[in-house]
Amino acid sequence: MTASTAPAPFAAAFAEPAGSPIRELFPYLSRPGMISLAGGYPSPSLFDAEGLAQAARQALLQGAGALQYGATEGLPALREALALQARERGMQAGAGDILVTTGSQQGFDLLVRVLVEPGDTVLVEVPAYPATLQALRLAQARILPVPMDEHGLQTDALAALLAGLPADQQPKLLYTVPNFSNPRGTLLAAQRRQALVRLALQHGFRVVEDDPYGELRFDGETGTPPPMPPTVRAVGEQLAPADSNPVVYLSSLSKTVAPALRVGWMLADAAVLRRCAVAKQTADLCTSPLTQTVAACYLQSGRYPATVQRARQEYQRRMQALVQGLASGDSGIRCSRPAGGMFVWASLDTRIEPQKLFDAAVAQGVIYVPGKAFYPQDPDLHTLRMSFAAPEVPQIEQAVQRLRTAVQQAG
Amino acid sequence: MTASTAPAPFAAAFAEPAGSPIRELFPYLSRPGMISLAGGYPSPSLFDAEGLAQAARQALLQGAGALQYGATEGLPALREALALQARERGMQAGAGDILVTTGSQQGFDLLVRVLVEPGDTVLVEVPAYPATLQALRLAQARILPVPMDEHGLQTDALAALLAGLPADQQPKLLYTVPNFSNPRGTLLAAQRRQALVRLALQHGFRVVEDDPYGELRFDGETGTPPPMPPTVRAVGEQLAPADSNPVVYLSSLSKTVAPALRVGWMLADAAVLRRCAVAKQTADLCTSPLTQTVAACYLQSGRYPATVQRARQEYQRRMQALVQGLASGDSGIRCSRPAGGMFVWASLDTRIEPQKLFDAAVAQGVIYVPGKAFYPQDPDLHTLRMSFAAPEVPQIEQAVQRLRTAVQQAG
Repeated sequence: MTASTAPAPFAAAFAEPAGSPIRELFPYLSRPGMISLAGGYPSPSLFDAEGLAQAARQALLQGAGALQYGATEGLPALREALALQARERGMQAGAGDILVTTGSQQGFDLLVRVLVEPGDTVLVEVPAYPATLQALRLAQARILPVPMDEHGLQTDALAALLAGLPADQQPKLLYTVPNFSNPRGTLLAAQRRQALVRLALQHGFRVVEDDPYGELRFDGETGTPPPMPPTVRAVGEQLAPADSNPVVYLSSLSKTVAPALRVGWMLADAAVLRRCAVAKQTADLCTSPLTQTVAACYLQSGRYPATVQRARQEYQRRMQALVQGLASGDSGIRCSRPAGGMFVWASLDTRIEPQKLFDAAVAQGVIYVPGKAFYPQDPDLHTLRMSFAAPEVPQIEQAVQRLRTAVQQAG
Repeated sequence: MTASTAPAPFAAAFAEPAGSPIRELFPYLSRPGMISLAGGYPSPSLFDAEGLAQAARQALLQGAGALQYGATEGLPALREALALQARERGMQAGAGDILVTTGSQQGFDLLVRVLVEPGDTVLVEVPAYPATLQALRLAQARILPVPMDEHGLQTDALAALLAGLPADQQPKLLYTVPNFSNPRGTLLAAQRRQALVRLALQHGFRVVEDDPYGELRFDGETGTPPPMPPTVRAVGEQLAPADSNPVVYLSSLSKTVAPALRVGWMLADAAVLRRCAVAKQTADLCTSPLTQTVAACYLQSGRYPATVQRARQEYQRRMQALVQGLASGDSGIRCSRPAGGMFVWASLDTRIEPQKLFDAAVAQGVIYVPGKAFYPQDPDLHTLRMSFAAPEVPQIEQAVQRLRTAVQQAG
């Protein structure tokens, strides 16, 4: 043994870091018979395993190209295929405007690195995706919540909030999931997209438009999906001077192809993209060229549209089972029908004690995420998030019955 | 158009970030006939493409498990296989002591996040891997160089340096590549490993032992590889109290299996591992479960030892072609024979003007990395790094001829 000094302390943000509040639910998930509405995982039954196996065979035939290091920005074939997706979603994009990221989680992380310093203000629509809140907490950002309603982020409230901020607290960034938000399931209204971009330009902040769910839109009353409003980035193209679009667009293949590829992407102006590429060099050098090649082969195979269509239809059936199940009679749990995505956000009758309901639900064999995980501060405890993506319809029907029983026990 | 304010500034470290100095050489690489000694890429001819294709087929047979999200710490089967590698290298490790990282680049990045705050002192053996220097610059660390000689990091110089540091500048971390360092190719002497751990314990800093090359050791004069000294982490096990080993061990499958898997790993004590897992959640949620499954299947297939053996022998042949080629007569370029790895570090005769030599070499059709890329400050400009890993022996022989011609032109 050597005489020793106490080891140097961890960085302040990591002195006693809290893990993900959703991960804290993991121990419950392994209980026999538990039906989980808690996860944010896509349904494995919707993965196109055959198509991906074909794509993998094709990728490995490319030999060294799929096994060696690749450029930090991403493989050319994949950047081309993703730029095409961007154009199909109504945005201007060439391969050179795309940065491939290790999931869209990394896209947000890179933006935080290149933009946010401790104490900087970042606006977040609330309720918000917990990993976004965690990334901002670890970056020691000052998180300012922007309220939402059934049409997404409230731009009037945002304007009032911005008008009241002192000059030294002007925000660097605003984070939003305009299409079928996590957890609220809302679609941001078209006129609010315009208002948001105008506010960004007036106040000089950038908007992170995180869009992993946009393709999972459900049919409207006419039996076909209603048209989507333009992406916030597309609105930025109309309103901002050339090369100074304040909107950075993030998306991912995780919800529509497979999370395990860890292929996300960023579409942004050159100044942002170049800095994120520098940050990515130190973060992981490059996203797996093997999974990038699999992704490129898969997108080129022409199977993607049918895969998305299948996911859209099946998620719609599951969503309906959940929403209709809770709507009939007085369940004590109020929710509205999301127009797409993977989540239903719900409010509890005030007569229900939230912790009692959670305990009763777990005892009944159903689990969801209590709403407090989605608030940076001042949580509305009478809320919760349910995902209908992973369980099959019969399981969802049973989950609804168990929830109803739990409400009776906790009411 | 909307009246607009200038966009919020980037974080200070990203105001005008320099990219990698090695990437700046990329434009030269595409010139016809260029032989590159510049890269750090393993040889694609040594990838076990057949074995990896088998492993990929097996992985995809596992269906959803290889396509879904996975635990942030890594897939259990892979953590088991990597813990076994750690034990084979003489360290204590169970699966729970391993964090799978997206390349060992991410391992270092996570450590910087959880430990280093702007202004913190970090010790780095110099000459050093440029991406390490870049990660520390972006973290706004105060980088203190520790000199090396042919036996690696000089622990006497380190002790003197530490004794002279004021209390408020004590280091948080020390970074070393003890086995066949990049760029210097040195093997850290066994007694220096002991001295290093003692200094770490006395001064309370952690040691990052980055070991991507340790298995690529060459045969000694007896025709078999000489025994390796214990890893620095193994020395830490002997000298430190239980659960406070100051050494964090990083390794990777990039140099021996394939970089495109982006599978690296960290072996560290629980306090470090837990915080790095929290940091990884916000960085990329998890390393690709698809490439993790391929890696696990590959390691379980039993093909790994023969693959490493093939790489070892071939790299030795290439190294010899380079070192012996430069050693005969007066080449003006002095280098010593590395005992393993992928790099030869060389010094130039003072009569040679370094920039003139670089220009002449490029004109002759050979490229290397000028030494200045490997210094945080005060570079020795009469140095350079050559990698013998990627070109075949005949190409290396031709590269040596071209270098000799360039020296004559620049001398």
